[in-house]
Amino acid sequence: MARRAGVSTATASRVLNRSAPVSEDALARVETAVRDLGYVRQRAQSVGARATGAVAVVVFEDMIHYWSDVFYSRLLVGVERALLHGEQELVVLTASRRARRPSLLRYLCGGHVDGVLLVGPRGDDSLPRLIRAAGVPVVSLGRPMAPGDLPYVDADNLGGAAGAVDHLLRSGRRTVGTIAGPPDMSVGADRLRGYLRAVREAEGPVRETVAYGDFTVASGEHAMIRLLELRPGLDAVFAASDLMAAGALRTLQRLRIRVPEQVALVGFDDDAVACRIRPLLTTVRQPVEEMGARAVAELLGQARGSGQDQGQVVMETTLVLRDSA
Amino acid sequence: MARRAGVSTATASRVLNRSAPVSEDALARVETAVRDLGYVRQRAQSVGARATGAVAVVVFEDMIHYWSDVFYSRLLVGVERALLHGEQELVVLTASRRARRPSLLRYLCGGHVDGVLLVGPRGDDSLPRLIRAAGVPVVSLGRPMAPGDLPYVDADNLGGAAGAVDHLLRSGRRTVGTIAGPPDMSVGADRLRGYLRAVREAEGPVRETVAYGDFTVASGEHAMIRLLELRPGLDAVFAASDLMAAGALRTLQRLRIRVPEQVALVGFDDDAVACRIRPLLTTVRQPVEEMGARAVAELLGQARGSGQDQGQVVMETTLVLRDSA
Repeated sequence: MARRAGVSTATASRVLNRSAPVSEDALARVETAVRDLGYVRQRAQSVGARATGAVAVVVFEDMIHYWSDVFYSRLLVGVERALLHGEQELVVLTASRRARRPSLLRYLCGGHVDGVLLVGPRGDDSLPRLIRAAGVPVVSLGRPMAPGDLPYVDADNLGGAAGAVDHLLRSGRRTVGTIAGPPDMSVGADRLRGYLRAVREAEGPVRETVAYGDFTVASGEHAMIRLLELRPGLDAVFAASDLMAAGALRTLQRLRIRVPEQVALVGFDDDAVACRIRPLLTTVRQPVEEMGARAVAELLGQARGSGQDQGQVVMETTLVLRDSA
Repeated sequence: MARRAGVSTATASRVLNRSAPVSEDALARVETAVRDLGYVRQRAQSVGARATGAVAVVVFEDMIHYWSDVFYSRLLVGVERALLHGEQELVVLTASRRARRPSLLRYLCGGHVDGVLLVGPRGDDSLPRLIRAAGVPVVSLGRPMAPGDLPYVDADNLGGAAGAVDHLLRSGRRTVGTIAGPPDMSVGADRLRGYLRAVREAEGPVRETVAYGDFTVASGEHAMIRLLELRPGLDAVFAASDLMAAGALRTLQRLRIRVPEQVALVGFDDDAVACRIRPLLTTVRQPVEEMGARAVAELLGQARGSGQDQGQVVMETTLVLRDSA
């Protein structure tokens, strides 16, 4: 394939493995090669013919995190339900190991599945683009970071975050900080943008205060300490995930700061942890099952040939009021 | 296919869907048809050639139970680790819906995977036999109920159960009852056989006392009531799963029967629940990750053609002593 693409084998391997940056030009040439060569699946003569009877869900997560996050189980229940009345089997793959990318691409584009649903691909991942280049229907669950024409289904992370911060401000809080997720993930970037929009539109002396975490409990604990250093008098925190909110709560309780009396706290995700901690966590719920079902509908639409158009679907979130804010 | 098999379409459908009993003869004819017709995967010319680059794990469980049982996550971690150094991708399917069997069989035998690992197929399921008839390498995780030549990897359920009951007897208990699983599942049948063997080999007046459950907490609660009716003076219970043990504990605590002082309790599986209840549950641990890895090795052995021999592997269990016995 490398020879055909006019790039070195090492470059082709870098493209597939994301092991190092490659130029746009090299990526484009590998893309063309993928389209032309054996990687391309043999499309059925009649567009829309059911070729393999299976739809793949590729989760960009290692097996352990995959199993510990209720998001994926809700999502797959939604996907399975949507496929129930069709003819397709659901096959699930996890993709954490960079070194395995060539074999993953070969499988997904080798005529073994009718379409691919990507869950949380990273912005620098060439896989979505290469699958699309091979002519395989593909939809991303979660907005891809890289600008492009990849169809996606996502929750309204920006609106959900802005709504959570609005709620804090309307209930009388004056100094709202945020624990943001990684800014190189769309879910991190969009929730931060929502916080910033709400704070900037607020009347009065609300000032932005941002600390970053990686969506884990431990990172929430540390980010909460950082927020208190940056803004000692803050009276509310919007955490971009429930796990980070749980970490923040741990820090606040260790410092004997009362929640919600002294500091109100809102999370995001309506994870199982939200009802395991006390006070019960106010949070933003995504319609995960519905997102899974909608992504399947988009995928089957592409497979039927009813538009390779850029389906970009953003679904509404709900603020779930409990005891922490 | 039905025409080719010389059976009615309804019969072929019954075979594939398990919707009603069919005769051995009809099953055999469908099997032959599967072997001959388009269901048969096109075997690579050279035996052992890697054809598709993927191995399928089929879990016979609905999506909700699948996600709530830590057994499957441990298993898939083991399977993935074993595939890590190979070239194969791991694709996971769940198979709970009877109506979907034809499409599942078509996928598994349609040249999309190099081998199939079946997790917990039921005894009356024709799928394992049909996959094997199609020449696709297949290994069962869990001993199949139907006598046959399906290679399998299983835990020593019989030995593990016998060891647990021996422990109860050696620690001075005299009247040991059991909460058994469904006797039409090998895991239920084997753990019951282990209990019976230990009780029958015991010296003194130990008498068998058996109540049945379906491996759930609620069934354990009810079975415990039944055991106390059958044998009011019992001083120990071996439950064939930790979930049933947790149910039994609930009943005992409601009746103010102290564990382990009045009744000792042992479970099976070393499920997460074993460390969530008080007293901490003494239980039997299966080497689940190792079983997954071993099943992969058996499967790849078959795919390489190094023996379609009946690999029947039984792996040792460990008694984990905690506070309940």
